[in-house]
Parts: sequence; structure tokens; C-alpha cells
Amino acid sequence: MDDYAQILSDVMALVSREPAEGSVATYIPELACIEPDKFGLALKCVDGPAFAVGDAQERFSLQSVAKVLALSLALTVDASAVWARVGVEPSGNPFNSLVQLEYERGIPRNPMINAGALVVSDLLCEAFEDPLGELLAFARELSGSDDVSYDQDVADSEYTTAFRNRALLNLMRDFGNIHGDVERTLQLYTKFSALAMSCEELARTFLFLADHGRCLSPRYAALTKERIKRINAIMLTSGFYDEAGEFAFRVGLPGKSGVGGGIAAVCPDRFAVAAWSPRLGDSGNSVLGTQALAEVARRTDSSIF
Amino acid sequence: MDDYAQILSDVMALVSREPAEGSVATYIPELACIEPDKFGLALKCVDGPAFAVGDAQERFSLQSVAKVLALSLALTVDASAVWARVGVEPSGNPFNSLVQLEYERGIPRNPMINAGALVVSDLLCEAFEDPLGELLAFARELSGSDDVSYDQDVADSEYTTAFRNRALLNLMRDFGNIHGDVERTLQLYTKFSALAMSCEELARTFLFLADHGRCLSPRYAALTKERIKRINAIMLTSGFYDEAGEFAFRVGLPGKSGVGGGIAAVCPDRFAVAAWSPRLGDSGNSVLGTQALAEVARRTDSSIF
Amino acid sequence: MDDYAQILSDVMALVSREPAEGSVATYIPELACIEPDKFGLALKCVDGPAFAVGDAQERFSLQSVAKVLALSLALTVDASAVWARVGVEPSGNPFNSLVQLEYERGIPRNPMINAGALVVSDLLCEAFEDPLGELLAFARELSGSDDVSYDQDVADSEYTTAFRNRALLNLMRDFGNIHGDVERTLQLYTKFSALAMSCEELARTFLFLADHGRCLSPRYAALTKERIKRINAIMLTSGFYDEAGEFAFRVGLPGKSGVGGGIAAVCPDRFAVAAWSPRLGDSGNSVLGTQALAEVARRTDSSIF
Amino acid sequence: MDDYAQILSDVMALVSREPAEGSVATYIPELACIEPDKFGLALKCVDGPAFAVGDAQERFSLQSVAKVLALSLALTVDASAVWARVGVEPSGNPFNSLVQLEYERGIPRNPMINAGALVVSDLLCEAFEDPLGELLAFARELSGSDDVSYDQDVADSEYTTAFRNRALLNLMRDFGNIHGDVERTLQLYTKFSALAMSCEELARTFLFLADHGRCLSPRYAALTKERIKRINAIMLTSGFYDEAGEFAFRVGLPGKSGVGGGIAAVCPDRFAVAAWSPRLGDSGNSVLGTQALAEVARRTDSSIF
Repeated sequence: MDDYAQILSDVMALVSREPAEGSVATYIPELACIEPDKFGLALKCVDGPAFAVGDAQERFSLQSVAKVLALSLALTVDASAVWARVGVEPSGNPFNSLVQLEYERGIPRNPMINAGALVVSDLLCEAFEDPLGELLAFARELSGSDDVSYDQDVADSEYTTAFRNRALLNLMRDFGNIHGDVERTLQLYTKFSALAMSCEELARTFLFLADHGRCLSPRYAALTKERIKRINAIMLTSGFYDEAGEFAFRVGLPGKSGVGGGIAAVCPDRFAVAAWSPRLGDSGNSVLGTQALAEVARRTDSSIF
Repeated sequence: MDDYAQILSDVMALVSREPAEGSVATYIPELACIEPDKFGLALKCVDGPAFAVGDAQERFSLQSVAKVLALSLALTVDASAVWARVGVEPSGNPFNSLVQLEYERGIPRNPMINAGALVVSDLLCEAFEDPLGELLAFARELSGSDDVSYDQDVADSEYTTAFRNRALLNLMRDFGNIHGDVERTLQLYTKFSALAMSCEELARTFLFLADHGRCLSPRYAALTKERIKRINAIMLTSGFYDEAGEFAFRVGLPGKSGVGGGIAAVCPDRFAVAAWSPRLGDSGNSVLGTQALAEVARRTDSSIF
Repeated sequence: MDDYAQILSDVMALVSREPAEGSVATYIPELACIEPDKFGLALKCVDGPAFAVGDAQERFSLQSVAKVLALSLALTVDASAVWARVGVEPSGNPFNSLVQLEYERGIPRNPMINAGALVVSDLLCEAFEDPLGELLAFARELSGSDDVSYDQDVADSEYTTAFRNRALLNLMRDFGNIHGDVERTLQLYTKFSALAMSCEELARTFLFLADHGRCLSPRYAALTKERIKRINAIMLTSGFYDEAGEFAFRVGLPGKSGVGGGIAAVCPDRFAVAAWSPRLGDSGNSVLGTQALAEVARRTDSSIF
Repeated sequence: MDDYAQILSDVMALVSREPAEGSVATYIPELACIEPDKFGLALKCVDGPAFAVGDAQERFSLQSVAKVLALSLALTVDASAVWARVGVEPSGNPFNSLVQLEYERGIPRNPMINAGALVVSDLLCEAFEDPLGELLAFARELSGSDDVSYDQDVADSEYTTAFRNRALLNLMRDFGNIHGDVERTLQLYTKFSALAMSCEELARTFLFLADHGRCLSPRYAALTKERIKRINAIMLTSGFYDEAGEFAFRVGLPGKSGVGGGIAAVCPDRFAVAAWSPRLGDSGNSVLGTQALAEVARRTDSSIF
């Protein structure tokens, strides 16, 4: 049996000796003031035990990591509507989401890119009277923390400057793939992107992807084993901006990163793991977070390849 | 000397024998109810005389033809600001304005495509407290008709469904090339696009481009001969969506078309001419309007080539 | 323990009841005359046993499946040269390999697309005096069949009509990423694409990817566990043209398909599996081959997700 | 009447005071050794007189200027075949000819870009047993110099390194828009691009475009007034790489530039003019050549706008 406590401790010791590379995201003004040298790491086993080191109790902004939660919740409502409006293929474009969206007539390549998550947000607005409330309830059940919520300042900060997301929304509206009000959809999107969790909470939250949904309450029974495999497959091929292939090799686990510096990943049937370090590399993924997960995967021999 | 009255009359007789090809624009709902077989043609000489046949006194929606007026007015305010924010090269893309805009970081290729005219609209909003009033005053002076105005129903109809223009505006806002409020800029844009004129009024309006500005009042003295040559050059290379090259050959005059079925063109030092026929070809240009202008140019030997 | 013999037999019975969908590839004239209703399936365990049903002893043209062998051989020569000249990210473009290649200045996105495999071919031409001989030796050792070879007619047929590959080669030559003679590189490429194997041979051939290289002779010791994980990761994100995401979900195993109708896949630490059915779906992958592998994965619970 | 002799002399004096900006083309090795400060200017009137200053008797490499001759000759053979295989619209892409060619399925936007001129070259190879001989005969008749020919070293130099043109040719061959042997077409293309003329010869050569073909011998009677207007229209919208709009404004004459530093232009019904200065600006057009023509056009009041 793996001694996860020892492994996490060793990994933190290792990455703490690394030089400080990368820099904190600045495109959302409110995120720019984060302490760059924070580091947290937490692991939650499917059979119960949990482990954590460093700043693993401190909350940070999930940002794109939350796209996985929004997608999962949408799949509990109407999975076929989701896959009619969003693809499942990697996008392979570091920079030009609008280009592909225009050529493919408003159907985003997958739900991990902004355009896809905006469609998911529109679906949630259609499905629920209080979509934000539903999403918070989902996040609270998964994380086991009743006070998990979003950061209003971060949400406001992103909302004010979200011109590119408005461009995506209006283009998709023109193609008929956004049904509701653009600003309402964007409000929900910026709020769920501003969800704040600690590494411990995030590892617990992703556990349902590692145990194929067994830990879910009956309310979310629509998240079947098949649907969870699809979410994992999408995370592996599309979860890391333009470094999905690199992450698949270095870490070898399905996962999702966010510009807040967090990464969550799962080893099916074994564990969920979350890392946090705010300094980002060129592709927008946490430098030390990636390295920590690579080490965890190597030391636990858990790469799926 | 050309007998313009005879030529216009002959041309109308000629095109009236043509089969009814093409169809009325439908993307702006309010435009779809236009009578498709209307036909007007008017010509105004730089030295005074004016001629008209058919429905040349009936007003129609200028749509993109009005982009020339917006550009001209912007050039009276700050020409260097215009050319810092909009290019002068043809776009060569029938379909993908967003693509080029993304690759070229928010600088539209020229002021005759939507993206470029939206930047011009933003410039007018910055320059004037009442940009619409200024534009109406300009259109009224040029046309000689004090009651020239925009059609509120057409403007509303376009505004409500202008999702693609909102996508363009927000993308350019993200790149920093739209400075003001997106909705205010769009309001002005849809209103000046809804300007309504008759062929007679439109030929008079474009006369300043044929006489290099001599007919303008001192208020618009900034429209120098050099600037007017630039406007004419841009119309020739970019005035007809993806048929600029074809129009340059068939007609051989700088001009601008609109989806309302109107086309205005100029023969430098000789005349301005306007045609109207609502049926559009595949590229969005009036089928009979183009044919009528080709015949006028041929019979007056006025192609610039 | 899984009863693989029973599972393979059941899966063949299942797919044999399916309607005949998809059609045989025609772009290489010589491939068009294949019997469309052939079906073979073979599985080789890392601990020895092998199983096969249907036409699993009949050879077919590997086509793109052979890209994995070319890449593997190149990695035994100079892995850092490979990754300096070819990327590891999914391409996400169903159609426009030249577009991406032009924007990314001649560096193909990954070695599973044509452009990437052509660079690999150029690398092999640089590294070996007799690159084809080396590749055949590699294929023979892996497959355990001394008479595995390429089909000269198929190679000729593809070579004669390979204009798009010549376009790719010349574009990359212009960018400096093809070093040797374009026609020599293309000769090697069309020959290794014309490698012919049976499902049994192909399953044996891919075994080194399932057992992390333990079955390889010392000659290929450079194929370390780490390098093999990278190959598997690339197959998962990029092995199925524009259906990588769909295959990752439906089957959940790293693999590679070819327009000859073959698919090879691996379940790390358990087995390699090969299916063959010449009818292809819209994205160029074998319809029944995919379905068969999906069933094998489901019944052996071997999806990596 | 204009005193052309004085104007040319004044213009040369003017540009000779300009600082030396831009640099000689280097992508064809043989062109890189040209003396950068050469300057020639020649003008030929439709009614006979000719004028020249500076190095106007010295020959230089026509490069893309020769595309106009190849197109004109092809139009004497089969104009409808030309327009079925090449468009007439500006391309609007500074850099990505392959992109547009791929999206538009092998039909080049116009005959002034490389792809279009390669199709023209293929047409000439189809039409004539000795296409190069025909082209030389055409160039000699037009220029009035029996010894006009191509520079073998320049042609060889370009041919050896013409990988991008080979990419274009093979891509178009794949789409069926190149019919003959790729290398033969490329040979002809590099040879006619290496045509060498002086400014005096070039101005005479372009005279047929200024006088609508009246100076042509009966052998080229197929170059009707209509066809010549089309050539002029194409030069205006597409003759200057990504500076067509800028040239249309600054000079206001249809013309064509080449990376040898030459530019030829025409004022319909008045004159043809040729300038040569090897230093090129960012878009590949001669810096002083453009400036000289702008001055000539201004001082002769010959802008068509």
C-alpha cells in the first residue's frame, strides 16, 4: 500500500526547492494580488483516507477548474442536450477560439474551453430557476463544506472585463447556440468561475470522478459510470489549454487546471488529488502544481499510460 | 457630350427586360417586406445637370452605402485617428470577418466591412455629443433634402438581432480598439445604416466624391482632395463585399453597395450615379443595380480602367 | 480472470449482427478493392496468452497504424531530435493540416497526423542508410513474423497520387523542418504506410506498448518506460483523426487507426488488441473495429477512465 | 500639355534626396547581389513620345511584374479557361496563401498572387508546345527589344529553393487545379519571373494596357479592350501584395510590382510608366519606386480617383 502521507510530504519538499518560475495571472485584476508562493496539495482516496500538506486548507479561485462542475451538473439535467450543443474533441488551438467557432458554426469543440463552458452556462440558465443556487448546492455536497461559495470581487472583476467572452456569446447567439440572455449567462459563468475552495475541498469534490459516482447522493444519480468516464476522457484530451498532450504524458491523469493556480486530477478507482500554486507557465497552467502532480503520479505509479 | 437622359432611359429599358434574379435581403426582418421589383436610377453631373428614371424619387434603406458617409464625417474630425484604428486594404474574405480581426488583433482591414464601420461609429461617438445629429446634418447638406432621416423600424429591427456585430464590437473592445460603450456604438451604427434616401438624393450625396469636395460647405473643408481620393480608392478595392474585383471590371467606378439594394458610384470629375433594385445576388450586391451601372459606365465610356 | 476467448467470440457475434455501415477508403486506388465485410479481432496478453477470432490471420494494409512504428523507431535513434521537430498536442482540425502547419511555422502538432509522420520519415532517412530495412527489421521482431513486409502495389498507388503529402513536405522544407530529399522521404513514408499485417501480428506488435517495453530486445532498449508512456499518451489524444475524444470515451484505450480498416490499442499492463474491418465512418475510422474495441474494453473493464 | 521630361527629371531629383530605406530582396540568393542604390524611371505615351531618367536603360529582374505578361498571354489562348481556374478578387492576406487556397479548394483568389500565376503557368504549358518561346516572343514584341530574355542564374537560383511554390503546386494538383507536371510548370514560372528588362523596355511593354491594345499586332488581337480593362482592374485591386489599397491611394494607377525592385503602372489613354529601385519596404514593394510613381501621378494629375 502506498504511504500517501509520506509521498505528499516528499513532493512538497521537492517542489519547495524549485526556483520560482512563472507568474500569477493578471487578466482578471482581482486575481493579480494573490500571494505567488502559496503551495497546497491534497489527496483523497476512494476508500476514505485523505491527506494534505502545505496551504491545503486555504481557499483559492477555481476559475476553469469549475468548468468540470458546471458540465457535471448540466449532465444531470439533460446529457443529450449538452452533446448536441458542445463537442467532445480537443481544440488544438492555443489562441483562436473564435476562428474555430466561426468555421464550425457556433458549436464549441468541447466543454473545457470558454466557448463550451458558456454554452453549458446557458443550458443551466435554461434548466434552473436558480442555476447559481443549484451549482452551489452541488459544490457544497461534493466538497462537504457548507460554506463553499464564490468570491463576489473576483466575479465582478471578471464580469467587467469579459469582452472576449461576450464576443463568443454573441457569435454563438448569432449561430443559435446560445438561447437565453447573453448577460445572464455571463453572470452565471463569472460567478461559478469565482468559486473558491481549498485543496482539501477540491480533492473531495473531484472524488466522484475517481469512484465513478459511487459517493454521489441519489439527487445526482444521472451521473452514471458511463457519463463520468466521458468527463474523465474530456479532461484528459482537453483539460489543460494547449498543454493537454504534455500533461497527459508528464502526469498521465485526467484533470483540469485553472488560472487561479489550481489543478484537480483523478486516478480512476484510486484517488482524487488537488494541487495549488499560483505561478503559471506560458500555457496558463500552474508550474509547480503540474510538477507536484507529476511526482505524485510517478511515486504512486498511477499514470493511466 | 453625352446625352445622359437618353442613356438612363435606354438602360432602364434594357434592365426591365431582364429576368427577375436574386432575392431581397432577409437578415434584417424589416427589410424583407420591400417590393422586389422596384428600380430607380439617377445621375448628377459635377457641372450641375441631374437625370433620373424609374423609382428614383422613392426612398430606400441605404444600409452599407451609409458607411461611406460615416467614414467621411469621421475624416472631418480626426483623419489620423481613423487610419490608426482601421486599415485601407481589401479583406478578401467572404465570410470570416472575425477570423481576420482576431489574427490582426482587432484592427479591421478597411472601413467598408462591418468591423471597420463599427470602429468609425465608435470614433463618432467619441468625437460628438450628438453623433447622430451630426451625421443627419451631413447627410441633409449633401443630399439637399432637409427631411432625410433614418427609419426607426429598420434600425430597431437590426439592433435587436445584431449579435454578430456585438461579437465584433466585443472582440475589438477586448483588443482595445473600441473605446466607448458597445451598445451606444451599435445604436449609432444601426441608425445610420437605416438612413433612407432616394436615388436622386443619393446621387447628389455622392457628388462630393466626384468633384473632389468642391461642392462641400466650409464646415466640411477637412475633406480635401487627397482624402476624397483615398475614400474613392477604398470604395474601389473594398466597396462590394467579395465582388470588389468583379465590380471593378464590370463597372470600373469606385462605389458602395448596400443590402437595401442601392449602389452609389462616382466617375471622378464627371458625375455621381445611384441605382436601386432590391433583388441581391449571392454576394449581397443588387443584381440589376450592378447591371445598370455597368451599362451606364459603358455607354458613357467612364470606366476608370 | 477474464475469459478473453469467450469475450472475443461474443464480440464478433455481436458485431456480425450489425448492419453494414461506412465504406471502404478509396483515396488510395489500390485499397478500394478490399473485401468490405472482412472482420478480424486478436488480443495478446502481457503475460503470454493470445486469442483471435474471424479473419485475424489475414493481412491488411496498416496505413496510419504504422505511424506508431515509425515514431517508435525514431525514438530509439534520437528522441530529443524528434520532439524538437514535432509537437505532442492534439491538432483539433478535421481538415486543415496545412493551415495549422503554416501558422506554426512548419512544426506539426503531433506525429500521428501526416505532417508529423513525414517529419519522422525524414528523421529516419537521416539516421539510417537503409531506413526501410531498419523499419522492416523492427516490425518483424515485434510481430514475430519474419515475412512481414509492405505491399508494393499499395505503396506505388499512394506514391503516385500523394500530392497533398508533397504539399506538406515542401511547405515544411520551406520552413526548414524537412532536411532531406522530399521524394526519398515520401518513398519511405508510402512504403511503411503499406506495411501489411494480420490482427494477430498487429496485436503482438503493439505488445511493447502494453508491457512498457519489457518484451523488446536489447537493440531497442532506448524505448524506455517513460518514452512508451509518451507514445501511449499521444495515441490517446491524437490517434483517431478528428474522433480522438469520441474514441477516448467509447473505448478508453490508447490506440491508432488506419484507413485500411485496422485499429490497434493497448491496455497498459494487461494486453494489446487489434481489430480489422474495412468499412470506415465519416472521420476515417473503422466503424465495426471501433465498436468491437468498445465492447472488448467494456467486457474486460479495461477503460483507463 | 505635360512636360514629362521635366517631371521625370524633377522626380528623380526629389527621390535622390531621400534617405536610403528598405533593403534588397534576399529570398532568391541571386537577387541579393544587386546594387541597392540603382534608380531608373521611364514613361511612354500612348501617342508616341518616350522619356527616361537615371538607370532607365539598365535591365533588372521583373519577378512578379512578369505575372502580368503571363496572364495576358494566357488570355490570348483561352480566357474562359483562365477565369474558371483563377479568381479576380483581392486576397487580403499578407502571409497565408496556403490557408485561403485550402479553404477555397485550390482556386487561387487572383492571378497576381503566386498560386494564381502558377495556374497561369500550367495553362501556358497545356496550350503551347514551347510556352517559354511564346512568352519570349510576346515580351519581345511588346518591349520592342529582340534580345529581351530571362536570366538563367536567377531562374536556377529561384527554382532550387522554390519549396513554397512546390507546396502550392502540389496542393492545387491535389484539388485538380494543376493539370500538368508540377516541375515543368515551376520551370516555366521561374523562367518568366527571371525575365530581365530595363525601365524603358518595361514602359513600352505595358503600353498595350494604357492604349487598350491598339499597339498590339494582330497575333494578339484576342486582348480586346474589355480584357485589358479586366487586367487593369486586377492590377489595381491585387497588384501590390498587401499594399494594394495603399498604392491605389498614394499613386492611383493600376500597376504591378516585383521583388526585383521594379514597378510598372498605366494611366489609361495616356501613358505607361516604369520605375526601378531595388530597396523594398516591409510589404515587398520598392520604396523609392512607389514614391517616384506617386510623384509622377501627382504632377501629371493622372490618379484615376
